[in-house]
Amino acid sequence: MEYRVERDLLGEKQVPKHAYYGIQSLRAKDNFPITGYPPHPELIRAFGYVKKAAALANRDVGVLRPHIAEAIIKASDEVIEGRLNDHFIVDSIQGGAGTSFNMNANEVIANRAIEILGGEKGDYLKVSPNTHVNMAQSTNDSFPTAIHIAALNMTKGLTEELQKLINEMEAKAEEFDSVLKMGRTHLQDAVPIRLGQEFGSYRRVLARDLKRVSRSADHLHDINMGATAVGTGLNAKPEYIEKVAKHLADLTELPLKTAEDLVDATQNTDAYTELSSSLKILAINLSKIANDLRLMSSGPRTGLNEINLPPRQPGSSIMPGKVNPVMCEVINQLSFQVIGNDHTISLASEAGQLELNVMEPVLVFNLLQSLTVLQNGMRVFKDYAIAGITANVERCRELVEHSVGIVTAINPHVGYEVATRVAKEAIETGRPVREICLERGILSEEELNEILDPKEMTKPGIAGSRFLPL
Amino acid sequence: MEYRVERDLLGEKQVPKHAYYGIQSLRAKDNFPITGYPPHPELIRAFGYVKKAAALANRDVGVLRPHIAEAIIKASDEVIEGRLNDHFIVDSIQGGAGTSFNMNANEVIANRAIEILGGEKGDYLKVSPNTHVNMAQSTNDSFPTAIHIAALNMTKGLTEELQKLINEMEAKAEEFDSVLKMGRTHLQDAVPIRLGQEFGSYRRVLARDLKRVSRSADHLHDINMGATAVGTGLNAKPEYIEKVAKHLADLTELPLKTAEDLVDATQNTDAYTELSSSLKILAINLSKIANDLRLMSSGPRTGLNEINLPPRQPGSSIMPGKVNPVMCEVINQLSFQVIGNDHTISLASEAGQLELNVMEPVLVFNLLQSLTVLQNGMRVFKDYAIAGITANVERCRELVEHSVGIVTAINPHVGYEVATRVAKEAIETGRPVREICLERGILSEEELNEILDPKEMTKPGIAGSRFLPL
Amino acid sequence: MEYRVERDLLGEKQVPKHAYYGIQSLRAKDNFPITGYPPHPELIRAFGYVKKAAALANRDVGVLRPHIAEAIIKASDEVIEGRLNDHFIVDSIQGGAGTSFNMNANEVIANRAIEILGGEKGDYLKVSPNTHVNMAQSTNDSFPTAIHIAALNMTKGLTEELQKLINEMEAKAEEFDSVLKMGRTHLQDAVPIRLGQEFGSYRRVLARDLKRVSRSADHLHDINMGATAVGTGLNAKPEYIEKVAKHLADLTELPLKTAEDLVDATQNTDAYTELSSSLKILAINLSKIANDLRLMSSGPRTGLNEINLPPRQPGSSIMPGKVNPVMCEVINQLSFQVIGNDHTISLASEAGQLELNVMEPVLVFNLLQSLTVLQNGMRVFKDYAIAGITANVERCRELVEHSVGIVTAINPHVGYEVATRVAKEAIETGRPVREICLERGILSEEELNEILDPKEMTKPGIAGSRFLPL
Amino acid sequence: MEYRVERDLLGEKQVPKHAYYGIQSLRAKDNFPITGYPPHPELIRAFGYVKKAAALANRDVGVLRPHIAEAIIKASDEVIEGRLNDHFIVDSIQGGAGTSFNMNANEVIANRAIEILGGEKGDYLKVSPNTHVNMAQSTNDSFPTAIHIAALNMTKGLTEELQKLINEMEAKAEEFDSVLKMGRTHLQDAVPIRLGQEFGSYRRVLARDLKRVSRSADHLHDINMGATAVGTGLNAKPEYIEKVAKHLADLTELPLKTAEDLVDATQNTDAYTELSSSLKILAINLSKIANDLRLMSSGPRTGLNEINLPPRQPGSSIMPGKVNPVMCEVINQLSFQVIGNDHTISLASEAGQLELNVMEPVLVFNLLQSLTVLQNGMRVFKDYAIAGITANVERCRELVEHSVGIVTAINPHVGYEVATRVAKEAIETGRPVREICLERGILSEEELNEILDPKEMTKPGIAGSRFLPL
Repeated sequence: MEYRVERDLLGEKQVPKHAYYGIQSLRAKDNFPITGYPPHPELIRAFGYVKKAAALANRDVGVLRPHIAEAIIKASDEVIEGRLNDHFIVDSIQGGAGTSFNMNANEVIANRAIEILGGEKGDYLKVSPNTHVNMAQSTNDSFPTAIHIAALNMTKGLTEELQKLINEMEAKAEEFDSVLKMGRTHLQDAVPIRLGQEFGSYRRVLARDLKRVSRSADHLHDINMGATAVGTGLNAKPEYIEKVAKHLADLTELPLKTAEDLVDATQNTDAYTELSSSLKILAINLSKIANDLRLMSSGPRTGLNEINLPPRQPGSSIMPGKVNPVMCEVINQLSFQVIGNDHTISLASEAGQLELNVMEPVLVFNLLQSLTVLQNGMRVFKDYAIAGITANVERCRELVEHSVGIVTAINPHVGYEVATRVAKEAIETGRPVREICLERGILSEEELNEILDPKEMTKPGIAGSRFLPL
Repeated sequence: MEYRVERDLLGEKQVPKHAYYGIQSLRAKDNFPITGYPPHPELIRAFGYVKKAAALANRDVGVLRPHIAEAIIKASDEVIEGRLNDHFIVDSIQGGAGTSFNMNANEVIANRAIEILGGEKGDYLKVSPNTHVNMAQSTNDSFPTAIHIAALNMTKGLTEELQKLINEMEAKAEEFDSVLKMGRTHLQDAVPIRLGQEFGSYRRVLARDLKRVSRSADHLHDINMGATAVGTGLNAKPEYIEKVAKHLADLTELPLKTAEDLVDATQNTDAYTELSSSLKILAINLSKIANDLRLMSSGPRTGLNEINLPPRQPGSSIMPGKVNPVMCEVINQLSFQVIGNDHTISLASEAGQLELNVMEPVLVFNLLQSLTVLQNGMRVFKDYAIAGITANVERCRELVEHSVGIVTAINPHVGYEVATRVAKEAIETGRPVREICLERGILSEEELNEILDPKEMTKPGIAGSRFLPL
Repeated sequence: MEYRVERDLLGEKQVPKHAYYGIQSLRAKDNFPITGYPPHPELIRAFGYVKKAAALANRDVGVLRPHIAEAIIKASDEVIEGRLNDHFIVDSIQGGAGTSFNMNANEVIANRAIEILGGEKGDYLKVSPNTHVNMAQSTNDSFPTAIHIAALNMTKGLTEELQKLINEMEAKAEEFDSVLKMGRTHLQDAVPIRLGQEFGSYRRVLARDLKRVSRSADHLHDINMGATAVGTGLNAKPEYIEKVAKHLADLTELPLKTAEDLVDATQNTDAYTELSSSLKILAINLSKIANDLRLMSSGPRTGLNEINLPPRQPGSSIMPGKVNPVMCEVINQLSFQVIGNDHTISLASEAGQLELNVMEPVLVFNLLQSLTVLQNGMRVFKDYAIAGITANVERCRELVEHSVGIVTAINPHVGYEVATRVAKEAIETGRPVREICLERGILSEEELNEILDPKEMTKPGIAGSRFLPL
Repeated sequence: MEYRVERDLLGEKQVPKHAYYGIQSLRAKDNFPITGYPPHPELIRAFGYVKKAAALANRDVGVLRPHIAEAIIKASDEVIEGRLNDHFIVDSIQGGAGTSFNMNANEVIANRAIEILGGEKGDYLKVSPNTHVNMAQSTNDSFPTAIHIAALNMTKGLTEELQKLINEMEAKAEEFDSVLKMGRTHLQDAVPIRLGQEFGSYRRVLARDLKRVSRSADHLHDINMGATAVGTGLNAKPEYIEKVAKHLADLTELPLKTAEDLVDATQNTDAYTELSSSLKILAINLSKIANDLRLMSSGPRTGLNEINLPPRQPGSSIMPGKVNPVMCEVINQLSFQVIGNDHTISLASEAGQLELNVMEPVLVFNLLQSLTVLQNGMRVFKDYAIAGITANVERCRELVEHSVGIVTAINPHVGYEVATRVAKEAIETGRPVREICLERGILSEEELNEILDPKEMTKPGIAGSRFLPL
């Protein structure tokens, strides 16, 4: 391989001649061989927007020469398009509060801009990564701003997928509206419910999640471009600050605006923990739903067997014919991942000190991963599991009919104490509740017909005409 | 001790004669000797409201005889006033989804109501814990409703305290507005900032927390009274459902309303995880602030020593004269508690199954504890730490003057590369930035006077007149 | 109330005349009204041992006058006996690295010693909390040492309870050794297993937990008495250090010894995180077992209904006759508590700085709580749940007979591909595996008799005589 | 691209002609597009060992025809060498308890074996992924066994790296043995210590971590090969079980042996949580050390500035000359990652049900990642940070001389109360402790010379000759 030599504060270093990245990216690569995972493509794209907007604003306010600005803008466009992703070589977990991400972007864009201006990579007198590409910026404003943009774009994708999942749950709620089944609390027989009510409940909680996730991303619209090193705005003209936010909003089509207090916006990371927390709650709810579906589809012969999940792959390398609820299981697993990620994010957030939180790289790694796996997971969960669920209507009805739980409906007529004696006898003898009530003269046949209608039990109200308050 | 004998589904048991609680409370006490902590007083009080409202509504719709209703209402009032707290004997961590909390309330109120009606405790033919006090209710609606009320009341107390803390931070931000000091990133010298800007940043993030916590409690206004066992409303008349919510809202002065979907509201616990998450974020932010204050007050002679915290107690049993930042440390510690509690709450929330989450007792134990320690902690943090902070103005100024970080301000005039060479020389030789710039002819004395004014550096802008873009 | 006046570095304060605690305890009570929970009784007791041993050692090496030593020793004995618990008034969560715990102990013992010597409480010229009771000690060695002792004693109690639970699991494994049932993976029918094998598995994992917990407490035997403020041993004579460890070991009957490196032992808290981690793993395993039992006992009519848990209390305030697996549920809940506590402990441990970890109070609060709830919980779990479990032998057998999973046993004879076709046909048609094999001429009746014996399937081996390798 | 057609239980599917993987791998790839991360190379390698050992054992006991065994062995060797890594296409997070990992291995090896036998990929009559490669195995034994092997090998690498870090800490402890500096507790001036003592403390705690991590991997030596589906050993001959363990131990050079109870070993995952917990504790300790180093190296001009970390890269894109403690920061970050991973692992472990834990894929993903980042991180931390640390001896000494903390040494001579008055005066007036003692006639010059020698204060003992006990 051929090399060029670059220099910085600490000395010089050979850089592969073909590389758009430069000496500082290379130092970071050497320093941080931690995960082996490169930056998330959405983060790279977001850096493209940031650098483009800064060049536009710097040009507008007259501190950056127009031809250099032009070259930076063109190079940034290539970054936005993902054409230079291979040159983003720094590890996802890195020391330095994202300086290496930022310098990787600065160097790639500078070198591409140099080429655009007819120069050779490494000739930073033409376009300097720091002086020009990073003009009026610090890692401490450009990196958080890039995170905000990446997270917002990914949140958009996630909420779209979540809306589709909600729609599917709603369709199932309607489809199963008349499927009567036994409700269970504590995994013990309770009182009748309809399968559609259960799916309706899934729809509801996910709809709250949708609202919650969307709302939790709101603070990400406040960006801190112009904060520079510590939020005071040193080296960033007020006109620049105004313009860069406007350019960014235009370029990304996101309602971005300058944070009211740049010192605050530079040191605090609650906008991330807020989003991550709502993702965690979504994960918890998804995992609960996946667990329910795994329970209801358990069997086929020795479990509850109330519903069927679509078979997606042979379930066992040794047990022929076995099919497992794999799409539910992957939801559980990615939920655990998201919950664990939220933990890492919380740790990183708490570790901020004074003017900056230097733990942002690990924070953003986990945040973007959570967004990724949730969006991916919900898509296949909807398509490969929810959409194809069928109900075992007969089996569900049969279980209701054999249950003792319907005894609850006689409470308002005879009181809890009498009902308890009936229930006890029913459980011990295996005889139906109705039969015992009749035999003991507790209620008449007519009354029992009214009171013990399971379908009626799935709606508010006291079945049966009553005459006396208790 | 004298006893009375009570009976239930499982047999009979001796109950202390003086006790308002009954056989089921006693079984629970035997079954769950786990933490030794009784129910939170706010939870007991909330149960008082729930039982009173239910009695009112049951009377209104004509299913509960008026004189029994009256007695239950009076007994509930005594619970609300905290006069029967000693009779709430079940452990904070208990199996059974809160049935033991609920039955403890039912039994205490039934026995007190029996007395009010002239009977003897245990004579449940007069007033039955289940048939009358629990009428049209299940643990699965009355317990969550009580949690909602307790959590909302405590959130109100917490946000009031938080607002006071924010006010104090604002006062400090103004008081310290002109205190120039060194900003630090990575704990390394960065560029100047004002102490008031730092406190302004604390105010800002806490103001977001206030909004976040308040908003996160919104879903708690949706209660599921009338859901009964699984949310279908079996044994709860629609008129009752309407009335009980109205009575509860009136009694508690909280904007409570019946949840749109009672099946959903009975099985899902996201309203709690949402509140807990916002408390967690508040805790993270408080901990970061406490860490900053501990750093800035470190010393007095071998640390940063930029601010002084008011001394609150001798700091050491062996080192005479030592005073420690104890009010900050307790904030760190209770924050860790809240973060750990959020973890437990998340685990409990994820463990819901089908129609119910039976892990609610441990969830509510942790949620109410988080609310308690945060409110208590913020009050003393404000009074005993923040309000009394003083700045070491001279020391702060001195540190700024000795720092190399101000070299950043020459960037826009000479470019990052030249500035780097100046900085390097300054660090290596210990000579001032100004001197090197002059000696090397990089900038004139006049220019340097303009550019290197530290106060100016704490505001957006490029100091100094410039002629050429870079 | 009558008061006496006490003085310290910060001024003077009124102390209730009857109180054994003094001004510093009172300051701490004012400063930290956080949880409302007083110190754990085991921690108080442990402080008694520490102060007694220090007095003995100081007397031995001639730095403490004998009559003062005697009085301190007697007062410490009263602390050990729990007779002065009411005078330990500081909150469980407190700033100051435990200084307030330590000073509370110093003051209570000093005042009681003063009385023993015929003086009046508060007359610290007779016996000084710092000069005499705390002689040659710092909070930074005496508090950790007290934690070690408390944790070791509680670990002993816990492991004894765990051993009993293991024994009970073993008894059940034997009792159920011949109960054939369906094994399930992914909650889907797999291949036969014996109920005794399942309980044997619970026994095994808990036995590993016993070993793990015991071993994880090993480092707690290394105490840092003599470390004083930062571990260097300033003001602690080498002879004292040797003697105080010996006295403590004698008094507590624990194999305590001086840590090899007192600087290390003073600043690092890994001995606690190690114990907490093993408790967390125990909690995880208990929770998994509780979940299994809840699954297997689900029903009674619409669940798996393979086993019965002993009824412990009526399960519902509305559903008559319902009985819930409350002893399992409380195990789940306390496990979540322990897991969350481990989180708080980890956060506290990571927050150590330089020579000390000032977050120890919240750490010890959570650690001792975990030990408490696990020990309490396992006792009732064993007595009220495990010991009384019965098997529904018929139901278990029936489920095995209806299952398709036994098709796995024909694999080694016909290969996975052929077995898959048989399984598929069995599932789709509902016909027995045996019938299909016969009809298709895949295996002979004699072969099938050998191969499809479910009992044989629960042991290693390939059922049936085979002739050819595949 | 050219395709071949493959069939399974659920139908047929096109597989790229060149691919060694088959239809089931492809189904998994479609089903689980979750993280985009392929299986960890060490896991793939471990599968190679498992499949090779199984083929050897199956051949030995006469159930697998020798020529097929040979081909499988050869193909497995290629997997071990990493030559077929590109054909492992399933996602790291996947439903199905690892069946897709296992089938991916089975298919790759089968197809390669077919080629070795002169056949064409996909001709499973020659070598079947299930019947032959997976013979006498289930995912439920081969996947955990592969995890054990991968984790053990990686633990070996990690502990070697940890040992080197410990050695480096020891070297530094010696190098800095005579560097006197101020000890700090609560970030407040305490008493003198030597820098070497601090590094010695780091060495000690890491040495415990080394022991802890090594020991925590012990249970991984118990493998469950032969357990097959649920641990009962169905279809696995006892002779096979014995031989496969022996072969695996030989091939991997690890002391692997068959677990005593295969049912237990198949359903429980405590061996993983145990390893993960010890990694978490290591992470906590590393993070604390990193924090200390960041504190001590803070500055250079406005911080503690007691030590220098080697500069590794320019620290700021805007602040010229700034160098940050990036190698420490990356340690903090990867520690947060490991702590969060432990959380995910705990969640996954708790979610086991009955005979199996289907959450193992997400568990192993996090476990292997923790091992990876810790090993990588410690290597660069040692090389790029610890090894190059230098001490600012003069600065350290100066801070000691200006501190009041040395007053502690007069305690044993004059009592805490008198010492407090001296300390108070020294702090308020800024005058030296010595001067005040002399002036007030508290101690003579000779006595003070003995007592106030800072170096002596860093060792156990009471400086100065004393005459009377207190």
